[in-house]
Amino acid sequence: MSLNLETPALLLHARMQQNIARMQQRLSALGVAFRPHVKTSKCLEVARRQLAAGAQGITVSTLKEAEQFFEAGISDILYAVAIVPNKLDHALRLLRADLRLTLLVESVAMAEHVARHGVQNGVCYDVLIEVDTDGHRSGIAPADPLLLDVAANLRGGARFKGVMTHAGSSYDLRTPEALAAMAEQERSRCVDAAERLRAAGHACEVVSVGSTPTALSAVHLEGVTEVRAGVYVFFDLVMAGVGVCRVGDIALSVLCTVIGHRPDQGWIITDAGWMAMSRDRGTQKQARDYGYGMVCDADCNAIAELAFDQANQEHGVLQWTGAEIDLAARYPVGSSLRIVPNHACATGAQHPFYYVLPQDGGAPRKWQRFSGW
Amino acid sequence: MSLNLETPALLLHARMQQNIARMQQRLSALGVAFRPHVKTSKCLEVARRQLAAGAQGITVSTLKEAEQFFEAGISDILYAVAIVPNKLDHALRLLRADLRLTLLVESVAMAEHVARHGVQNGVCYDVLIEVDTDGHRSGIAPADPLLLDVAANLRGGARFKGVMTHAGSSYDLRTPEALAAMAEQERSRCVDAAERLRAAGHACEVVSVGSTPTALSAVHLEGVTEVRAGVYVFFDLVMAGVGVCRVGDIALSVLCTVIGHRPDQGWIITDAGWMAMSRDRGTQKQARDYGYGMVCDADCNAIAELAFDQANQEHGVLQWTGAEIDLAARYPVGSSLRIVPNHACATGAQHPFYYVLPQDGGAPRKWQRFSGW
Repeated sequence: MSLNLETPALLLHARMQQNIARMQQRLSALGVAFRPHVKTSKCLEVARRQLAAGAQGITVSTLKEAEQFFEAGISDILYAVAIVPNKLDHALRLLRADLRLTLLVESVAMAEHVARHGVQNGVCYDVLIEVDTDGHRSGIAPADPLLLDVAANLRGGARFKGVMTHAGSSYDLRTPEALAAMAEQERSRCVDAAERLRAAGHACEVVSVGSTPTALSAVHLEGVTEVRAGVYVFFDLVMAGVGVCRVGDIALSVLCTVIGHRPDQGWIITDAGWMAMSRDRGTQKQARDYGYGMVCDADCNAIAELAFDQANQEHGVLQWTGAEIDLAARYPVGSSLRIVPNHACATGAQHPFYYVLPQDGGAPRKWQRFSGW
Repeated sequence: MSLNLETPALLLHARMQQNIARMQQRLSALGVAFRPHVKTSKCLEVARRQLAAGAQGITVSTLKEAEQFFEAGISDILYAVAIVPNKLDHALRLLRADLRLTLLVESVAMAEHVARHGVQNGVCYDVLIEVDTDGHRSGIAPADPLLLDVAANLRGGARFKGVMTHAGSSYDLRTPEALAAMAEQERSRCVDAAERLRAAGHACEVVSVGSTPTALSAVHLEGVTEVRAGVYVFFDLVMAGVGVCRVGDIALSVLCTVIGHRPDQGWIITDAGWMAMSRDRGTQKQARDYGYGMVCDADCNAIAELAFDQANQEHGVLQWTGAEIDLAARYPVGSSLRIVPNHACATGAQHPFYYVLPQDGGAPRKWQRFSGW
């Protein structure tokens, strides 16, 4: 395949559509709403396809994402990082422009602050409480008395809407059994938190759980109202290592060009360094460490003998590990390679565009992605 | 210091000006021209200050940088990554717009290709040959007969202008003696390459060397016509670990906000994750590993007891390593911290703006930076 693009370039394969369909069908069958996390794509054309497939609203990781997707017409958005005072004026502007924005808190201090900000500005913020179901990062344990204190302080300018959790430790698991158990732990603990809140008199309309591995591994989702997942839309080598996709499902790759050789070292130098791949070495702790990514030919067939071990800003160094060959003859200067990323969110974030490969093999279309806060 | 910024935000301190002055004075005293590498800042306001201090032209790592800086009026640019066919039409457009652009090659194939492209399009490209002086990445060894073959093929639509090297392995050194020795190796081997080319009848006008550590460690630069360096403009923890700056010279930091706590783990959660810091763990192999960066208070005083060990996309997890305290009382939700980066080029690349701190303590100005290819 010859694409006639300046490299490095981020390629998006049509198989994304199968990934979207797979997750939506699964969650529809489990009887829950799906609110995809768009921090992976930061791209309107991708989010539109997720919504067209049946998603209900989106999840974002920054207010910049909320703003950009709202401007493009998406009106139901959960900002899934605990809010802090310096972001509330931004949230207020979005709310006043009629975005249905849901915020997240995990402390009494911020519950009070949000409620006060709402009163002062004549609005009422919809708020979820973050629940910790696996100890991997933030949130309140379901049995912690703090949970009820936070909910009690969501009044006046704030409305308690429900609970949210993210079992991020599922990324460290490797077997279907462990993943199913983690999905059940995420579900049951989050539902427990909701029940405790309801028993204390709080209506708990939303019970939101999710991560790509647990969403694809849950056996049932009783008591859950919505699931969130992000990276499934492209998948990546980390997800293949976790076992929730095949390498062949990965929709993202970086097209690069051979710029030189060091025959004495067995090196091929390319123009995809860490700026094009990110410094994410997510597969380093997995059974198969892909370095900075899996090296493939221009048609995305893996070249097992090329290891992407070193990266500088705009140089990738690929180590030939096979039997001795004439590297410059096999992979001449100017020839194309494709690198499948460890982590789609991190590699995507390095690029301003996706070059979308049409199924008929024509010229790629350009989809914009945004960045920053 | 209270900055009233939405976080995370990339702060640029006025001490950048001292870093600029230090390098320029040093290279002027050594009697060579300085061509700063603007891949670190990707910011016009920064490059203008480097030129105002005495720099002669700039070095770029992408043609996007060449284009952006040329549009802003900088007309002498070296693109210091070996050119490949898919970028030549872009280079041609810039040349035809009257940019004094210098390209780089390291193979006969590309020398021929560039020369042919020049003839076909009625232009003549100025070209340097990349020389390898430390075995760390690309380039031709000074004694390799290939050097003369490449030069001989730069004719017709290409003009051989000189040699260029980058002793990137200087980043792995730790002592002034080893750095000075590497600077001398970089100089002498590059000058050797130039002499061999001259002996074969090629005028070799440019002898370009450089990296921040070697530029700051060279004792003399006889035979060298210009030096390149990039990261010195901001410095970072990696450079402090190499020993060519003090931590107090670092001009870049990421302002972030405490969003939560996990008292049972001794964790403070902030809104600066890997998206704000990058995944660069450049200090990992150094004597002092700073994790994802050095944690400081809002006035940039280091907090030695807080280790930035874990990062998710928009969450940083700081581990308290000191005597037991009430973390939420000492660092309440909403309070500000600053993170000094491992690698200024990588952290900078995650942000669309610098918030420039004025020396009088007024409101920060916003300087744009660009990204992509």
